[in-house]
Amino acid sequence: MNKFLGYTCSICGTEYSCTQELYTCPKDGGNLDIVLDIASIIRKYEFSDITSREENYLWRYLPLLPVVDPGFEGTPFRMTGGTPVYNPTQLRIELGLKNLWIKDEGKNPTASFKDRASAVVIARAREIGSEIVVTASTGNAGAALAGLAASIGQKAIIFAPKTAPPAKIAQLLVYRAEVILVDGNYDSAFDLSIEAVKEFGWYCRNTGFNPFTIEGKKTAAFEIWEEIIIKKSMDFKPLSIFVSVGDGNIISGIHKGFKDLISLGWIEHMPRIFGIQSEGSAAIANAFSNKSENIIPVNANTIADSISVDLPRDGVRAVRAATQTNGAFLTVTDQQILEAIAGLGKAGIFSEPAAATAYAGLVKAIESGIINQNDPVLVVNTGSGLKDIRAAMMAVKAAPIIEPTMADLKRYLQKN
Amino acid sequence: MNKFLGYTCSICGTEYSCTQELYTCPKDGGNLDIVLDIASIIRKYEFSDITSREENYLWRYLPLLPVVDPGFEGTPFRMTGGTPVYNPTQLRIELGLKNLWIKDEGKNPTASFKDRASAVVIARAREIGSEIVVTASTGNAGAALAGLAASIGQKAIIFAPKTAPPAKIAQLLVYRAEVILVDGNYDSAFDLSIEAVKEFGWYCRNTGFNPFTIEGKKTAAFEIWEEIIIKKSMDFKPLSIFVSVGDGNIISGIHKGFKDLISLGWIEHMPRIFGIQSEGSAAIANAFSNKSENIIPVNANTIADSISVDLPRDGVRAVRAATQTNGAFLTVTDQQILEAIAGLGKAGIFSEPAAATAYAGLVKAIESGIINQNDPVLVVNTGSGLKDIRAAMMAVKAAPIIEPTMADLKRYLQKN
Repeated sequence: MNKFLGYTCSICGTEYSCTQELYTCPKDGGNLDIVLDIASIIRKYEFSDITSREENYLWRYLPLLPVVDPGFEGTPFRMTGGTPVYNPTQLRIELGLKNLWIKDEGKNPTASFKDRASAVVIARAREIGSEIVVTASTGNAGAALAGLAASIGQKAIIFAPKTAPPAKIAQLLVYRAEVILVDGNYDSAFDLSIEAVKEFGWYCRNTGFNPFTIEGKKTAAFEIWEEIIIKKSMDFKPLSIFVSVGDGNIISGIHKGFKDLISLGWIEHMPRIFGIQSEGSAAIANAFSNKSENIIPVNANTIADSISVDLPRDGVRAVRAATQTNGAFLTVTDQQILEAIAGLGKAGIFSEPAAATAYAGLVKAIESGIINQNDPVLVVNTGSGLKDIRAAMMAVKAAPIIEPTMADLKRYLQKN
Repeated sequence: MNKFLGYTCSICGTEYSCTQELYTCPKDGGNLDIVLDIASIIRKYEFSDITSREENYLWRYLPLLPVVDPGFEGTPFRMTGGTPVYNPTQLRIELGLKNLWIKDEGKNPTASFKDRASAVVIARAREIGSEIVVTASTGNAGAALAGLAASIGQKAIIFAPKTAPPAKIAQLLVYRAEVILVDGNYDSAFDLSIEAVKEFGWYCRNTGFNPFTIEGKKTAAFEIWEEIIIKKSMDFKPLSIFVSVGDGNIISGIHKGFKDLISLGWIEHMPRIFGIQSEGSAAIANAFSNKSENIIPVNANTIADSISVDLPRDGVRAVRAATQTNGAFLTVTDQQILEAIAGLGKAGIFSEPAAATAYAGLVKAIESGIINQNDPVLVVNTGSGLKDIRAAMMAVKAAPIIEPTMADLKRYLQKN
């Protein structure tokens, strides 16, 4: 069953056939939405047909994805998603929230949310017979593409800024992708990769460019639906979802997932979606504040490298993810991000700066009364703290070093 | 139901009551085995009562653990274990094995196998009312204790060598344990922690000292039993399990798990267990070669920091894990470990040096004819490569850095 009908431009609304291989709208460069054959899905599936499927991981939702079954059972590629949702009692108490969950995307195969997009884009690449998949990346999308591609023997090329955190570059190299570091920022890597794709005919995974990325990312919404909305009977009061935002593609993907569920008639209420940006990389939050969909580039500068972007490539849909769900955009400082790393760590959750940004936003939303104690909240923790230990070390006090003797230990303990 | 009957010394066989709080044998310092009430478990449970339990993660096996239900649903503490088993088709082809699986312990909450031990030791600490749990660690056991303790609000103190990889120290600090780095190696941290525990009355998690660690680690055997032996009907030919060995506690734990399953009558054949050590830290492999249980300390020096240990604290049981299962001990060089990191990476699996050691051992075992193509093999990948990126960078070629221009990209591509 082919569920992929075509594309619609998110800006001008032009429709394109699924027989065309498109990235952004040929008319105005807008992000393309994938059009699913919702009517056929409704005829074929009840929601219990999905929730009773044996497969875990994101391919559980294959009936709702615009790709055919890619196979590769037992590989990291196939074991993407299905991430744990924590019930952090201590943080609930600390924040004064009755219902708080944290979805830990750091447990994906390459330790970030980006694996979801890479999985579905790779499935698409194989469907159309592409031999080489390329992406520009601040690190995580690249690692996700490199790692999942490696696990099924697909060739990948990654363009990344040379300033990406060492752990992310190490991942790219260990997964044996062709890695090309550019002496520039993410935006320059992005532009170069697009040029290269055009010239060499490679398939491009770029976030906010390839329309299939949000189809992978929307699976997080499906998991939240199953884990929280169904199991915890949360539909009576809208769930508030906090997610960090760089180029705007994750928040758009989560929004798309819930829009699919509404189209299918499987949920009644749209959750509220809150996008959190770093003050130093706030192009989308700025547009939201201005009640505009006009995304004006900034000179990004933030410790949260994964969401540091001058020109967000999926800004319009990101703004709508908040405006259309009664959500909002908030910004936080690098200092608040570091405090959030420490705050999550105290609950046994180790997150990279971009991931902790969402939690920092929740803290701010509570302080400013946007979220109150009765609001059920889920925070998406988009990547593992092991991805950026320089930042982690800035978030906490250094450890003492002592001689391995009881005398020295006692001296230390007495002083502290 | 109290399944914990007492302890038996693995050296002299002396039995001790469960009412005593013991670490090693008071007579000879031997490691104590926990004695489970197997008869009661058999009366109460069929194996299908276990395999049909809804809970995933290691607490699924609570009926086979010597602790009471610790609670804390929804925390990383409770969501330990249940790690994925990959079916790495490309590695099967490369190695010429018909059946190969890799169990990825890097997907545990703090990204290593050690979480299993920490979970059960913390449960024990709470049962006996200990306020502070302490461990010496090369990094992973400490992170495991710190992270899981943090997730339930348990206080932890970690002694580690100041030379531990930065990512591991970052984890300890972010999880907000009391971290004390010693100017010495793991063995000196170990000795100091034991002295401190005696002096201050803390509860000690130390590997190869606390008898409950292997009760946590044995849950990996239960998962292998369910995932491979039951589901793949592998009981007709013994599975060979490859595991890296430092102090000998993980291999002893896996052995204990299968011994429990045999005692329960739930499996007929003991899998073969292969312990792999680094040549630079081979005290247990040396004893195995000498057909001895006499563990002679070495001056450990290997890139695989997690298994770098002068005096293995669980050496005798580790030797027996191989001798009693028709397995063996093998050693590999640091160079072979680095090659194994690259080999696993090519299949989308990123492992730290100690984890890749097991895979390096498999490569060697195939080359030397110990394992042949019909032997079903499972490799335990004990920790995430994000834990030690210095080593990862040594395993692969550096990436080129280019100007973000098509001209420079073409120059690079033409040369390569």
